[in-house]
Amino acid sequence: MAVQRRIDLALDSVKRLQRIGATANLLNLLQKQHPADLAQIFSELNDRDREAAFSMLADRNGRLAMEAVSELGPEAGSALLATRPADEIARLAQEIPSDDAAALIDNLPEDLSSSVLDLMRPKESGVVENLLEYPEQTAGRIMNPNVFALSEDMTVGEAIGELQASRDVEMVFYLYVVDARRHLVGVVSLRRLLLVSPETPLKRIMTAELMSARVDTDQEEVARQVASYNLLAIPVVDEENKLVGLITVDDVIDVIKDEATEDIYRLAGVSGDESVNTPAPESLRKRLPWLGINLGTAFLASSVVALFERTIDQVTALAVFMPIVAGMGGNAATQTLTVIVRGIALGELNWTNSRKALAKEAMVGIGNGVVLGVVAALVAWLTRGSPVLGLLLCAAMIINMFVAATAGTLIPLGLRAVNIDPALASSVFITTMTDIFGFASFLGLATLFLKYL
Amino acid sequence: MAVQRRIDLALDSVKRLQRIGATANLLNLLQKQHPADLAQIFSELNDRDREAAFSMLADRNGRLAMEAVSELGPEAGSALLATRPADEIARLAQEIPSDDAAALIDNLPEDLSSSVLDLMRPKESGVVENLLEYPEQTAGRIMNPNVFALSEDMTVGEAIGELQASRDVEMVFYLYVVDARRHLVGVVSLRRLLLVSPETPLKRIMTAELMSARVDTDQEEVARQVASYNLLAIPVVDEENKLVGLITVDDVIDVIKDEATEDIYRLAGVSGDESVNTPAPESLRKRLPWLGINLGTAFLASSVVALFERTIDQVTALAVFMPIVAGMGGNAATQTLTVIVRGIALGELNWTNSRKALAKEAMVGIGNGVVLGVVAALVAWLTRGSPVLGLLLCAAMIINMFVAATAGTLIPLGLRAVNIDPALASSVFITTMTDIFGFASFLGLATLFLKYL
Repeated sequence: MAVQRRIDLALDSVKRLQRIGATANLLNLLQKQHPADLAQIFSELNDRDREAAFSMLADRNGRLAMEAVSELGPEAGSALLATRPADEIARLAQEIPSDDAAALIDNLPEDLSSSVLDLMRPKESGVVENLLEYPEQTAGRIMNPNVFALSEDMTVGEAIGELQASRDVEMVFYLYVVDARRHLVGVVSLRRLLLVSPETPLKRIMTAELMSARVDTDQEEVARQVASYNLLAIPVVDEENKLVGLITVDDVIDVIKDEATEDIYRLAGVSGDESVNTPAPESLRKRLPWLGINLGTAFLASSVVALFERTIDQVTALAVFMPIVAGMGGNAATQTLTVIVRGIALGELNWTNSRKALAKEAMVGIGNGVVLGVVAALVAWLTRGSPVLGLLLCAAMIINMFVAATAGTLIPLGLRAVNIDPALASSVFITTMTDIFGFASFLGLATLFLKYL
Repeated sequence: MAVQRRIDLALDSVKRLQRIGATANLLNLLQKQHPADLAQIFSELNDRDREAAFSMLADRNGRLAMEAVSELGPEAGSALLATRPADEIARLAQEIPSDDAAALIDNLPEDLSSSVLDLMRPKESGVVENLLEYPEQTAGRIMNPNVFALSEDMTVGEAIGELQASRDVEMVFYLYVVDARRHLVGVVSLRRLLLVSPETPLKRIMTAELMSARVDTDQEEVARQVASYNLLAIPVVDEENKLVGLITVDDVIDVIKDEATEDIYRLAGVSGDESVNTPAPESLRKRLPWLGINLGTAFLASSVVALFERTIDQVTALAVFMPIVAGMGGNAATQTLTVIVRGIALGELNWTNSRKALAKEAMVGIGNGVVLGVVAALVAWLTRGSPVLGLLLCAAMIINMFVAATAGTLIPLGLRAVNIDPALASSVFITTMTDIFGFASFLGLATLFLKYL
């Protein structure tokens, strides 16, 4: 709360100083902010004020300005950066670690990003271009190539000297040890250096068994490794086990958030790279295919209704109640599906324990069906005066809730088994099934017992 | 991949050794595993084998066994722990940090947890009971109370001595400095200690401005602070600013995962503390209220259909197509809702930029409506031979997609404004709206143009 309040106060001051044009005071205020706070302030200003504030700060304190842009995230950050000329972007990009620069440059419009790379110092643009060569969502793409390493032939005293001389190295807490050809051979903690005498050879106190990630490891796998072994950072090596970079826990937190967003989105049929800031035409293009598939399945379900048109023609009340059976099945299926998909994502569910999960969901489904079916039956009976209609509604709801539970469990597990992301395709399958079974069970039963209605 | 393969191999060996009863070899193998790997191995064994492996390891290496139980998470971990007698649980609980012990003990059945607390050493049960007194989901509940602190009167040399003498302290990288009454007054990094001479007073090199969390701060707020300022740990203080605990970044990662699960669940109407392992009766009890609300809203939507029973009676085909209009509205609304809710959760969306988001979603909604409406109209025309039916379907779909987009944007923002979690209540509101508007627009238009059908 206190943090949010401080940011709100700063935001109010920024707006006020911009309004009255007090440039010197404004610059002074901006320079006092933490990059993360600046990012939040930027995101709450309107486009014009944000660009004005950014360009003013970029002139004076390029590093802070770029750290704030970096905190905005690649999409919003690049959009803000793109408002500046290419030569200025090239200068600014050199102020931040190359992995952060690469993420921003990668999101600039194509022609702008290549001019920026041309205008950067050859050494730095080379590093950025190297990073951009790794496929997206791999360790190589998100690592910081500027990793601090000690030679295995050093003593502890020399190591401390090296550390004291180094500046600008990202979060040093594990010290990686390499051989003459930069192969990763061990790790020493900073704390361990304090516990031994300066003459001790590094080799003697280093731990040779250590976790590392390969440049081509999937970022989700890296995040799982760092999170489950409670690491603060993980070294990244190439195919020859040479140390090429470092991924720190704050990068991992970003990956975990992104992957959670992806899961949430996929369950709803939204593509992972969409956000509230995506322009309308792009959002439309991304969402239409999913809705198109849904339209196809909706017609499939409606063709089931068409099979029973003669029954509906005789008892119109059926048309009033049939959406309830289908809709409640869909809601119950969504609950089951969500628990199962999240269970798979968190590694709690696999084939071994899937039988237990299926039995449980089936029981919950029948239980829900009985309780809600009885309530719905009473409402139908009271409003329509037909106990038979109520009984049919109850029976159809129990059947459909059972279908919802089993489909909601088996479909994601089945997709997982054939290596399709269960979150991606599950919801369209199961709502189609609950619509079809909902309509078929209710209208089918009604057709069988038509003479009692 | 390599990590997963190693665990799979170990799991196969565990199963084989259990089958042939090679106890000594099994124990040997279990003892060599990392706690996180052990947790995964445990979770993939069946109940009987898991309990056998855990009890064998607990006798020999209680600490490792408990670290693995802790990695299983509070729910599955407590379930495994509950298979042992209370006095053994009390002994084992003392092997791990008190915050981890508290999380496990809190999830034991009520009578078992109180016997365990009675059987623990008074000092340790006191610490655990203290932690359990803080409300759930606050900093106090998840912090480790065993925090390493240095006195402000020390020199750097004394501080290093203190550090060398300390064992068993969780991840030391920031060293917190306190005054005589344990008020938090500053912080020194381990690296900084290496850069100055031993006689330097700690006071001179410490940073007095530092982030801290209050015991009653919400864990989500703590996680946001640690993540946005890229911290490795945050000290926790009481109302008097006395240092009482430490939250490390690995705890924060757990919070971020839990909060993402909660968001995913709430969008689907599942309560945050459910998982694939929740017993059926409990799941049923947790899911029924949500389905009950949905049943109420389903009857509300069906009463709209009932208003048009006479129209349906004349043109039964309307009953066939009306679920398409309602269902597609629901799908489109879910997409919009998900992007908006996630945007709010990630702090990308607020009242200031909500007008832009609303305009965008409305455009996307109308665009989707036009494209899908035209397709649906063609299908209806071709299958039913009625161009008017097609036109009505198209018009109703455009209207409902527009409603879906605006409701999907405004409802979560509105809930947020009155401090209700937008993920919690949004989906039931908007699918009710898209059902009602879907039925009303399609059947209403059909009633108006009945003579052309």
